Amino acid sequence: MIYLDNAATSFPKPLRVYDEMDRCMRTYCANPGRGGHAMSIASGKAVSEAREKIAAFFNIDNSLRLAFTKNATEAINIAIKGVIKPGDHVITTCMEHNAVIRPLKTLEKDGIISLSIVEGDNFGRIDIERIIDYINPRTRLIVSTLSSNVNGIIFPVKEMGRIARTRGILFLVDASQGAGAEEIDVDEMNIDLLAFPGHKGLLGPQGTGGIYIREGINITPIMQGGTGSISDYLYQPEMMPDLIESGTLNTPGIIGLAYGVDFINKTGLNNIKVFKHSLIKRLMEGMEEIKGIVQYSLKDIDNNSGIAAMNFKGVDSSEVSYILDKEFGIATRAGLHCAPLAHKTLGTTGQGVVRFSVGCFNTVDEIDYTLKALRKISSRFN
Amino acid sequence: MIYLDNAATSFPKPLRVYDEMDRCMRTYCANPGRGGHAMSIASGKAVSEAREKIAAFFNIDNSLRLAFTKNATEAINIAIKGVIKPGDHVITTCMEHNAVIRPLKTLEKDGIISLSIVEGDNFGRIDIERIIDYINPRTRLIVSTLSSNVNGIIFPVKEMGRIARTRGILFLVDASQGAGAEEIDVDEMNIDLLAFPGHKGLLGPQGTGGIYIREGINITPIMQGGTGSISDYLYQPEMMPDLIESGTLNTPGIIGLAYGVDFINKTGLNNIKVFKHSLIKRLMEGMEEIKGIVQYSLKDIDNNSGIAAMNFKGVDSSEVSYILDKEFGIATRAGLHCAPLAHKTLGTTGQGVVRFSVGCFNTVDEIDYTLKALRKISSRFN
Repeated sequence: MIYLDNAATSFPKPLRVYDEMDRCMRTYCANPGRGGHAMSIASGKAVSEAREKIAAFFNIDNSLRLAFTKNATEAINIAIKGVIKPGDHVITTCMEHNAVIRPLKTLEKDGIISLSIVEGDNFGRIDIERIIDYINPRTRLIVSTLSSNVNGIIFPVKEMGRIARTRGILFLVDASQGAGAEEIDVDEMNIDLLAFPGHKGLLGPQGTGGIYIREGINITPIMQGGTGSISDYLYQPEMMPDLIESGTLNTPGIIGLAYGVDFINKTGLNNIKVFKHSLIKRLMEGMEEIKGIVQYSLKDIDNNSGIAAMNFKGVDSSEVSYILDKEFGIATRAGLHCAPLAHKTLGTTGQGVVRFSVGCFNTVDEIDYTLKALRKISSRFN
Repeated sequence: MIYLDNAATSFPKPLRVYDEMDRCMRTYCANPGRGGHAMSIASGKAVSEAREKIAAFFNIDNSLRLAFTKNATEAINIAIKGVIKPGDHVITTCMEHNAVIRPLKTLEKDGIISLSIVEGDNFGRIDIERIIDYINPRTRLIVSTLSSNVNGIIFPVKEMGRIARTRGILFLVDASQGAGAEEIDVDEMNIDLLAFPGHKGLLGPQGTGGIYIREGINITPIMQGGTGSISDYLYQPEMMPDLIESGTLNTPGIIGLAYGVDFINKTGLNNIKVFKHSLIKRLMEGMEEIKGIVQYSLKDIDNNSGIAAMNFKGVDSSEVSYILDKEFGIATRAGLHCAPLAHKTLGTTGQGVVRFSVGCFNTVDEIDYTLKALRKISSRFN
């Protein structure tokens, strides 16, 4: 199997991720922060070190402002619902995933917020000035993806952060696509709230993710429960990360995530980035030569988190993806990728797109084989 | 290390849980239900089979009514906030965990619900008639733990279910303590909503849990996001389990959980139960002979999910737990166990209790060694 579905979940993970998760589970996985015995302390310490490592990765000063979640979707829901008040106005982009769009559209439908969605060009690029146009005195929050999960374009997050901060508007970045691919510095980018998954670019396991909440931002949590702290208090503790982390954490998962981040640090984010860019460039340039292919990712490879989106003219994306899987053993994702507005923007709502998403473990040979497969498929449709 | 903290998280897990999680991660873990390639389908199939196995374990007819969560706390929050409407009245018990108490007290504080907490006797036993006394025309929900996480007593869930069902009141059971120890039949027990963790009695990994929602009950979810279904719809799909399962699931965790349940099925729930009862009986009877020990668990072993709660008269529970860990290598949990009302009921708010919670991998020798340790500690304090 040639795995080109890393934007859905990365595969494989660094070997140490598997090894350390397994070691944790078999040898010391008690309940972190619950109870003072040796195993519980060992688990608590491992979680705490993981928190510090991941916080440092995003240049978060105080690691306690980082709470672990089960995935990015939970983190996004916590962020949006945690800061929104009735009557607020929210601005987001046309390239968001349903993890952003569905909570916002639900709040809009329930009459709690008003919502503006910044339009993009044919590739989903937005004009930063349009965001400014949409800002009104009730605007509390701007939400943007770091990178589109459909065609990989990188959003001007730093500029958006500056616009938000100078106007006292909160800025939430959905780094589901992009964390582990692009450098994220919450300070430099003026990010108030950062939501990320563990199992994609960060090379950790499924069942992990996190939310960074800048110091001074008050969040109303969507859940309450046991935190192992102030146990005699019948309400949720207000201190981070307890405010957000109710119930038992996914200790082995969090440890796996820390080793994923460790792998990125040791390999070098920039090395991974350059390597992935070279694979995507090879793939996109190769596809340009193939008859009948329409591409939806930008040629500007430097602004791509590792995705090449394409179609054969007039052929359903699912059919192509099916052939790639069945006949060539190449894993891609077709359809709408849970991002209907992005497909509306790209003009691919009916057809979907075939998404090739590379990871740091893909190889040049795999790209060449994929191009060979696409040439064969092309000859069938043209 | 003698691990007697199974009520916090069970350890160890059946070997197959480790093996199959590891195999999943290393060989086929793609994104289940997202994309149609071979690995994604293999992951989706494994999740689907896990869902069926776990549903069957609770006698849930339609496995699609079972949604996976990250832990029991999430499941409880989904259940409570999913069915509550402003002005509702909720009844719960004095032995609940903060996973139940904190969401309910928060809703009460916010003026959304009124709340009645049924009192118990010195062991936390409630009089079923008191529940009936509390019912009023606005009562929408009764919430009860299946078993106390402090002293292990089993609640009369079947009777409570009957009372709720005959009056058209919804019944939520928190099976955090008890799932895997007591048989749970959602039909026979008239359970409308069942919340459970994966990492305790079910012998699965941390990062897993679930919520069963009876057919016909409408839930307003606390999160929205991508579900891999009806992707062009900007709101949350209403069908189960997608309604609840937003974002990427914890595939390896869910597979591990299924193998935990598998182990219970193969060993026999009743065999595990009888064995754990014999260990607890041995421990409690042994403690009765030791000077200075006060016990908080019922002698009625058949109504105990596997917990012996005790103190040395006048000695802080944390001190005893600390000595057990440091000098004897015995892991217990002291303090309030995130259940302040239970401790108020037991009269142990100041002192906490030392909780010994057994699992199916504990041994008679371990219990005897623990008793020896307690005798030594007793000689120090008496």
